[in-house]
Amino acid sequence: MADKDISQAVIARLPRYFRYLGELKERGVERISSQELSDIMKVTASQIRQDFNNFGGFGQQGYGYNVNYLYEEISKILGIDRQHSLVIIGAGHLGQAIAGYTNFTRRGFVFKGAFDKNPELYGKKIRDVEVRPVDEVEDFIRENNIEIVVFTIPKEQAVPMAKRLETTGIKAIWNFAHVDLDVPDNIQVENVHLSDSLMKLSYNIDRYEKSLNP
Amino acid sequence: MADKDISQAVIARLPRYFRYLGELKERGVERISSQELSDIMKVTASQIRQDFNNFGGFGQQGYGYNVNYLYEEISKILGIDRQHSLVIIGAGHLGQAIAGYTNFTRRGFVFKGAFDKNPELYGKKIRDVEVRPVDEVEDFIRENNIEIVVFTIPKEQAVPMAKRLETTGIKAIWNFAHVDLDVPDNIQVENVHLSDSLMKLSYNIDRYEKSLNP
Repeated sequence: MADKDISQAVIARLPRYFRYLGELKERGVERISSQELSDIMKVTASQIRQDFNNFGGFGQQGYGYNVNYLYEEISKILGIDRQHSLVIIGAGHLGQAIAGYTNFTRRGFVFKGAFDKNPELYGKKIRDVEVRPVDEVEDFIRENNIEIVVFTIPKEQAVPMAKRLETTGIKAIWNFAHVDLDVPDNIQVENVHLSDSLMKLSYNIDRYEKSLNP
Repeated sequence: MADKDISQAVIARLPRYFRYLGELKERGVERISSQELSDIMKVTASQIRQDFNNFGGFGQQGYGYNVNYLYEEISKILGIDRQHSLVIIGAGHLGQAIAGYTNFTRRGFVFKGAFDKNPELYGKKIRDVEVRPVDEVEDFIRENNIEIVVFTIPKEQAVPMAKRLETTGIKAIWNFAHVDLDVPDNIQVENVHLSDSLMKLSYNIDRYEKSLNP
């Protein structure tokens, strides 16, 4: 299993497999063939087999995959078979939305702290966590072994903040600020650029309309 | 220019080009070579030329691209040279965060309405728009020619809501609910599955750690 060679495209598809397998598990389905999985997920069975072959194939035999086993294996690959602690910088609506998702907690992402530079928010509670001054974030990260920092701050603040956090021992930044971050290799960055997504949507609206009136 | 054949991977990169070109424009840069663009964007110059060739190449000559022209052309391709009206269903923190982004307005996405099923939110103002009962959403869409509906509702509500909106004339759903939607071809769907993104982050943390201790 040479994890390092697996493309980000395959990785990006794993959470979707995980989601469908979770639903099958909840419905009590024990086995599923790549063809049946293909039908419900609307990807080809050969794509599914190819994707799974990156991880040794998960041992499908003539009678399909064991749903529970596949679910557990994918959760290990995704690193969600253990807990990850996270803090949020930027306690506005987006930060509060993210901190409030109990679903993330169920997946092992444990919300430990919220920080903002607006004094009016200090002490405000998000779930059971109080918003603190952003200047305390480095100490808090070190004292609590925080792995993931969520950036729900404007782009102007994101670049210097990433710089400040470089030596705190964090492992990743989940970046909602609309700017690319330049960080050392030991910090992983996952971007959620909402306006990029909205522009893609707008492109697809146009493309569909042009296909009707070429 | 055969737009229909352009891969979603290329499309997904266009907003990033657009963002960097916007920054260059603001800094007063008039021309840029694919090599200079490559340096600031950290993609290869050949990738840039290949991507642009999908749209006729934007006429780079020996002395580089005209920044303003390129910016305008990409904005046309993305369909953001005109206005799109949108409403939000689900006026919780995430819905309020999205409705509040003045950046989207600047790009031509005009926020026209917010809907929720929680009566406590009716009448509450998000920017200058009042939250209305979700049962009014179909009429509102028809009367106001709404193009885009943002789903910031739980996944259980998203599937029946997509069904309800099928005949209202909407052109797209920007879907934050953690479920895949099955809609007719005339409705484009762009998903923002936040937990998928978080799992990808977790995978990349693990992969990095394994690369240190193989």
